[in-house]
Amino acid sequence: MSKKAKIRKLEKKVAKLKARVREARTHTHAVSPLAPKDGFPHLPVIGGARFSAVKAGVRYPGRVDVMLAELDPGTAVAGVFTRSATRSAPVLDCQAKLGTDQKAGAAFIVNSGNSNAFTGTNGVKAVEAITEEVARITGVPQNRVYSASTGVIGEPLPFERITAKVEELHGTMSADAIELAARAIMTTDTYPKGAGAEIKIGGKTVRIAGIAKGSGMIAPDMATMLVYIFTDADVEQSLLQRLLSDLTDETFNNITVDSDTSTSDSLLLAATGASGVKITEDTTAFIAALRGVMLDLAHQVVRDGEGATKFVEIRVTGAAADADARRHAMAIANSPLVKTAIAGEDPNWGRVVMAIGKSGAAADRDKLSIHFGDILVASQGWVSPSYREDEGAAYMKNDELVIAVDLGLGKGAATVWTCDLTHAYIQINADYRS
Amino acid sequence: MSKKAKIRKLEKKVAKLKARVREARTHTHAVSPLAPKDGFPHLPVIGGARFSAVKAGVRYPGRVDVMLAELDPGTAVAGVFTRSATRSAPVLDCQAKLGTDQKAGAAFIVNSGNSNAFTGTNGVKAVEAITEEVARITGVPQNRVYSASTGVIGEPLPFERITAKVEELHGTMSADAIELAARAIMTTDTYPKGAGAEIKIGGKTVRIAGIAKGSGMIAPDMATMLVYIFTDADVEQSLLQRLLSDLTDETFNNITVDSDTSTSDSLLLAATGASGVKITEDTTAFIAALRGVMLDLAHQVVRDGEGATKFVEIRVTGAAADADARRHAMAIANSPLVKTAIAGEDPNWGRVVMAIGKSGAAADRDKLSIHFGDILVASQGWVSPSYREDEGAAYMKNDELVIAVDLGLGKGAATVWTCDLTHAYIQINADYRS
Repeated sequence: MSKKAKIRKLEKKVAKLKARVREARTHTHAVSPLAPKDGFPHLPVIGGARFSAVKAGVRYPGRVDVMLAELDPGTAVAGVFTRSATRSAPVLDCQAKLGTDQKAGAAFIVNSGNSNAFTGTNGVKAVEAITEEVARITGVPQNRVYSASTGVIGEPLPFERITAKVEELHGTMSADAIELAARAIMTTDTYPKGAGAEIKIGGKTVRIAGIAKGSGMIAPDMATMLVYIFTDADVEQSLLQRLLSDLTDETFNNITVDSDTSTSDSLLLAATGASGVKITEDTTAFIAALRGVMLDLAHQVVRDGEGATKFVEIRVTGAAADADARRHAMAIANSPLVKTAIAGEDPNWGRVVMAIGKSGAAADRDKLSIHFGDILVASQGWVSPSYREDEGAAYMKNDELVIAVDLGLGKGAATVWTCDLTHAYIQINADYRS
Repeated sequence: MSKKAKIRKLEKKVAKLKARVREARTHTHAVSPLAPKDGFPHLPVIGGARFSAVKAGVRYPGRVDVMLAELDPGTAVAGVFTRSATRSAPVLDCQAKLGTDQKAGAAFIVNSGNSNAFTGTNGVKAVEAITEEVARITGVPQNRVYSASTGVIGEPLPFERITAKVEELHGTMSADAIELAARAIMTTDTYPKGAGAEIKIGGKTVRIAGIAKGSGMIAPDMATMLVYIFTDADVEQSLLQRLLSDLTDETFNNITVDSDTSTSDSLLLAATGASGVKITEDTTAFIAALRGVMLDLAHQVVRDGEGATKFVEIRVTGAAADADARRHAMAIANSPLVKTAIAGEDPNWGRVVMAIGKSGAAADRDKLSIHFGDILVASQGWVSPSYREDEGAAYMKNDELVIAVDLGLGKGAATVWTCDLTHAYIQINADYRS
């Protein structure tokens, strides 16, 4: 047999076996190897917030796919959303509603299976119908009902399947059903994501509980990062919004799986005030706890990145400005060559240099230094004399990696988080026909 | 056997078979399926230009890896280079030399196997030694000797292996050895790249011949796009530089394989004047022919993109400005989700919408339309009523694809070229330990 024929034969075998692996995987829903070891955490119960979820069959029968959260009168709501120019109808609706009278209650309704994005005027009609029905059943004013949708795009959302379930949702609300809500918003996520905190402020307890979904800008057609965080702290709306925007810049805006931005990304933060603890700009314990919950959820999204096998922190210091540091960090985190090198457990610092060079932010080749973990790999424009390739290669075998770059120019710093780029990413996004 | 154990066993089998496919491939050097069908073209001989190439063993023995081009006195030289902030020593040296007295001759010396990038002060010494030796042997002033290096980064360039061969290179120069030169600069390229043109201007013949290397920002550690174009036209240096910069914006700056930018990208254009035809800004026939040669070489680089199975043209029209159109086109061309969908032959227009949304340039969801080839896929914010998914899927089976987006906003337009993102890209960049 000729060499070419042999290769063709082997390739066919590989393709067949791969299909079998894929099929087996589809049925076992293999959880990401980077998922939190202890499963979904035990989250604190938030006074003034109640949850429920149902099977509405939006796209697939037999799985919970719609969640409702109801919030007591007096709840402040803040939000941040995708900056995409092609954002979905629910996102535009939420943005228009933010900042309205906080004395009324509020409701969040979210479905998976269909993202109601790029659905023309039908998308607007669906949002209107859903939020109207939630308002009617719950008594919350419609301009305080926030909706979100995640799943396939470009297909009309069968909103009647959702409106038909609002009464059941409202009738089964419970203060401790947040994990079920986290499951209802999953699409290709391999595990539900939750994080919480309890802190003492002036002798009283303040609680925070959040859920998220997302694993890249994925699947089956276009997924989304959705995040809902609840606290019983008493926070004035404009302060809540300011805190949320600032902390998002330090957390969710510093993660990237594949550099692709969804049309539906939404993050809502509700403060019910049930704890009776008034928060000001100086309540640093609360701000730190909220930041911790947000960072935890952000990391969980990266840990569920499609095909991810490595969780990678990119730390950039010594930049001329913070914005420069972030630009370098994102260039490294998004570089396909850096990400494939990490997948291959290759301490390929040359590709890190390349990414810094292309980022567009200030850098001086002969002043920068690179660490992989504690190992000094390169400095002063060349590989470090102390560096040994086998040490670098051994370090790359870890599941969690830190790549640190010091530019030697100034005090600008930034940290971002990402995952590697593997065959499984290609498989999920190319091999499966959506 | 449990399901998990079965999957593990199958996965092991796949890994083993894949390794065998890879090994077989390594020895056959499979040429890209998108390579020009007729092989290296017959290029016109350029008066005043001579070429040679030798086996210097820079990294691998037994292959031609250093080329020299000598150009007669009176030759004008123009160049464009990577904008990387971490560019290599040869790039910095070339940039410093451009624009010097064109009455002297010129020489280009290029090696593959080692890129002399991120090699600290040793890099500068190597460039100095090589260009000095070329000047000594050829009689060309050292400030007219341009060098380039491509291959692994971060390792000192064994420049003595190159300087030892300059006499042999000079002694074997020939006017028709340009194909050998094209082979000498290859790294992971699967075929040598050449393009040429002959045109009549005022009854006289003007000739252009160019060579290129590049197939992503790759291999074994960090590759490069290098391009050398020669013409016997008589062009004043400042005009030659202006033409080159403008045409680069329309050609090489509009291709992308993986969004990663090399530290060594270099393009030199030499005009010997041997044809006796004086070129001005109005010699449109020459400008068009030069543009054609540059575009041909640019497309050949994309066609040799790592793992590429599809050559894709992204046309954006109706943007508010040309710059906006280019930003949208590049966002689509660089999106891992768009590129994996193309690899999977999936007419996933939703991902095109997503990429437009994230690009940062102006777009209105409800005004844009998308064509795959001649098929209108989406318009007015929704899937087109005439679109049939099976037609889209059939179109995606082609090797060469056109994705056209009209934004419906203005007259801005741009076209860029890219390839798909496949398992082979991951294999080349992750599985092989460089």
